[in-house]
Amino acid sequence: MAFEKVKRSDNYSEWYNNLVKQADLAEHSAVKGCMVIKPYGYAIWENMQKELDRMFKETGHTNAYFPLFVPKSLFEKEEKNAEGFAKECAVVTHYRLKADPDKPGALMADPDSRLEEELVVRPTSEAIIWSTYKNWIQSYRDLPILINQWANVVRWEMRTRLFLRTAEFLWQEGHTAHATKEEAWAETRQMLDVYAHFAEHFMAVPVIRGMKTPNERFAGADETLCIEGMMQDGKALQMGTSHFLGQNFAKAFDVKYQSKEGKLEYVWATSWGVSTRLMGALIMTHSDDEGLVLPPRLAPIHVVAVPIYKTEEELQAASEALEPILGNLRKAGLNVKFDNRDTHKPGFKFAEWELKGVPVRLALGPRDLAAGTVEMARRDTKTKEIVPLEGLAERIQALLDEIQENLFQRALALRSEKSFVVNTWDEFIDAIENKEGFAWAHWDGSSETEEKIKELTKATIRCIPFDAEEEAGACILTGAPSSRRVVFAKAY
Amino acid sequence: MAFEKVKRSDNYSEWYNNLVKQADLAEHSAVKGCMVIKPYGYAIWENMQKELDRMFKETGHTNAYFPLFVPKSLFEKEEKNAEGFAKECAVVTHYRLKADPDKPGALMADPDSRLEEELVVRPTSEAIIWSTYKNWIQSYRDLPILINQWANVVRWEMRTRLFLRTAEFLWQEGHTAHATKEEAWAETRQMLDVYAHFAEHFMAVPVIRGMKTPNERFAGADETLCIEGMMQDGKALQMGTSHFLGQNFAKAFDVKYQSKEGKLEYVWATSWGVSTRLMGALIMTHSDDEGLVLPPRLAPIHVVAVPIYKTEEELQAASEALEPILGNLRKAGLNVKFDNRDTHKPGFKFAEWELKGVPVRLALGPRDLAAGTVEMARRDTKTKEIVPLEGLAERIQALLDEIQENLFQRALALRSEKSFVVNTWDEFIDAIENKEGFAWAHWDGSSETEEKIKELTKATIRCIPFDAEEEAGACILTGAPSSRRVVFAKAY
Repeated sequence: MAFEKVKRSDNYSEWYNNLVKQADLAEHSAVKGCMVIKPYGYAIWENMQKELDRMFKETGHTNAYFPLFVPKSLFEKEEKNAEGFAKECAVVTHYRLKADPDKPGALMADPDSRLEEELVVRPTSEAIIWSTYKNWIQSYRDLPILINQWANVVRWEMRTRLFLRTAEFLWQEGHTAHATKEEAWAETRQMLDVYAHFAEHFMAVPVIRGMKTPNERFAGADETLCIEGMMQDGKALQMGTSHFLGQNFAKAFDVKYQSKEGKLEYVWATSWGVSTRLMGALIMTHSDDEGLVLPPRLAPIHVVAVPIYKTEEELQAASEALEPILGNLRKAGLNVKFDNRDTHKPGFKFAEWELKGVPVRLALGPRDLAAGTVEMARRDTKTKEIVPLEGLAERIQALLDEIQENLFQRALALRSEKSFVVNTWDEFIDAIENKEGFAWAHWDGSSETEEKIKELTKATIRCIPFDAEEEAGACILTGAPSSRRVVFAKAY
Repeated sequence: MAFEKVKRSDNYSEWYNNLVKQADLAEHSAVKGCMVIKPYGYAIWENMQKELDRMFKETGHTNAYFPLFVPKSLFEKEEKNAEGFAKECAVVTHYRLKADPDKPGALMADPDSRLEEELVVRPTSEAIIWSTYKNWIQSYRDLPILINQWANVVRWEMRTRLFLRTAEFLWQEGHTAHATKEEAWAETRQMLDVYAHFAEHFMAVPVIRGMKTPNERFAGADETLCIEGMMQDGKALQMGTSHFLGQNFAKAFDVKYQSKEGKLEYVWATSWGVSTRLMGALIMTHSDDEGLVLPPRLAPIHVVAVPIYKTEEELQAASEALEPILGNLRKAGLNVKFDNRDTHKPGFKFAEWELKGVPVRLALGPRDLAAGTVEMARRDTKTKEIVPLEGLAERIQALLDEIQENLFQRALALRSEKSFVVNTWDEFIDAIENKEGFAWAHWDGSSETEEKIKELTKATIRCIPFDAEEEAGACILTGAPSSRRVVFAKAY
């Protein structure tokens, strides 16, 4: 296998597609729009799951599982105004596949197995979950309900890209029910903070926390909060959303509780989710022309050791020198790979582990051995140094922390470089189209203006950031007054 | 909430359904045939997953994810003789839901969104996975492939029972590809042993390992191996299967590899799975008329401590005496619940935690406190003893091991009691119908005899056990010669 590399500067989109395939992360499947997540890609996703799941549990949530299918009638309850409604989703209409009497060797949906009511493969689970919560909630004593679900969901997509937009994807969806508006709001904010912490401390991706405009809001939500990351091409990627659902679902599914005072009240709700889309964000934030670059806290393999040898004795000597050190690293919870394959040369192995983004590579030959040293290379900066074998385990531990921090700082620096405070339309166009970055700009608050700007530039309002201070200004398009800047960018 | 209990001796089936609901394990959903797995039930499943996943990884497997949908044409490849074929499964025919123009407020599958090819929601993933492996395998260097997937699957079922038989269920499915028949056979056996180890050492359910008869074999397999457990009513429950698939899927999907000698050969395959059905096995093996009984190694909560108090000071004193002990248990990795709810009385709490199967319960009142003791109750035997607070953590650790072992021994004793070596038809009928147990009987090896026996008694051959010695005998039905006994039982 030779690695066919595409440079980011030549074709960013092709670079991404190529990398996802060559680094064995995912591929397209026999089912249009659906992906196969390969073992190496899935191992990264498992690491993400593990950390997120821990954080959800630490904030009081438990996992549960709700059905894959949503009866059509539940969507009808949710959609008060079905008129004009259309949802791209997988619709199950039959429950039997049988031999086609007219075509030998062919199968068909058995016409006799037509379902009385069509089932939709869940695009998200609010409807099925709130139809269940209705039975679980009678009194204030039943609240709050703090449940998360790890699941697959399906949204029919015509134009798909591995991890970023596929018909089926994996995600987690939290669905909580509360007695008061304040509590539901606190939950919505808390979960956004959990996502931001995960993005910054594990993925090493700096994010902007903020609120979506009504245009970009989840249909069932009163407010949608989000975290937005910047990819290396300056485009934004929405990495997670936390919705304050108000009493919308409680009203649609008639979910009331008896308060301490004996009054019947509608329940308040939140929902929040992140998906395998995060894999796309991880790849596009850190990786380079040589392949994947992984933050140590999510890397399936932290250290790879490659022996340089000509004879069996030299391999033996390298193994003996390395084993106690690798053993120490393993004891410290690190995944260490000793690549002693005799089918490939060191150069090939170096390239392969670079492609797969292993944070630290060790190479050890007879000369190193004689000198009691090893060559240690870091993936993020591609620098090498000769270090003594003595104290190597401690040194690697420290280096992994350094790499984690460096990746975050590098991403932060790029974001700063490509973020522009703009005050005029020309500056705005320059920021979005020439400099290809984020534009912090004043906006008059109207959906019309937002849509007009999108039409003209393809840039959307990524969020109304929490961290921006109030500041009087004039909308870049209409000149109407504005009290704070919002973040515009082209987005995935 | 009052617990409405049904006795096993009155109505075993109703006892089971009642227990699953009252112990908050699962419930029926708005979708016919699909269940909601509630947080407490899901926590047990998560513990199962964690241990199984660890064992799969220790035996060299990695996880991956394949699409939910299988195009109809892949089933056609798998089914050489489609004639007469019928599969109860969910068939997706449309990709859009829209407002029904004829019925205000109603939605419908958009006729314009008819799929060119129907998609089946996976009932199992051999077809989609082998169509993928075809692209992954060229040479012997690409083998073995050792992949597992945690997923939901759907098999349309008319008569469903929570955990035991539902349209959608959760499972893991291993799919491996090998260069040689020997290696594939070794894998098939190894994974059966992994399942048996899990059943016996974690679920505390003794199992019989064996081979299915051709009648009971998975359609695509050359041989199906299984583990079979005995429930308290003497019925068998198939707890896991490991299939030796031979070259069947390699041939159906044309998957060949180039051997070291340069020859093109078909690949050998295995698949193996366990599902949320294991929850049913766990419940039906150990639980009693008071509720759930959980083996400590899978219990979401190991110890519950209930303070007995009248005044706030007494609660405070009980908390202070217990905290360091509970802290020690938590440090040792145990889940400990301190139930200081002021909304319920101790008696209610005792009943609730009994219903939920928590292995050890502590109760501590002012008199215990004065004496430096605590009341320690074990769920399996429902015995109590007064023990000193000093050394309590160590004592509980030892008790949990004892409970784990006792549950296994108790189940083993029941199985022995209800297992009968029979040599005549009358003895067989007596074992199956009067004594309601397993019958170890000679069988002439023919499918006709097997079917006839099933017709007459509803008993099926659960397996041809590995542990039975060769022994000459005569078939209980036909009198024809047989060289070993097989296990007959009624089954879930």
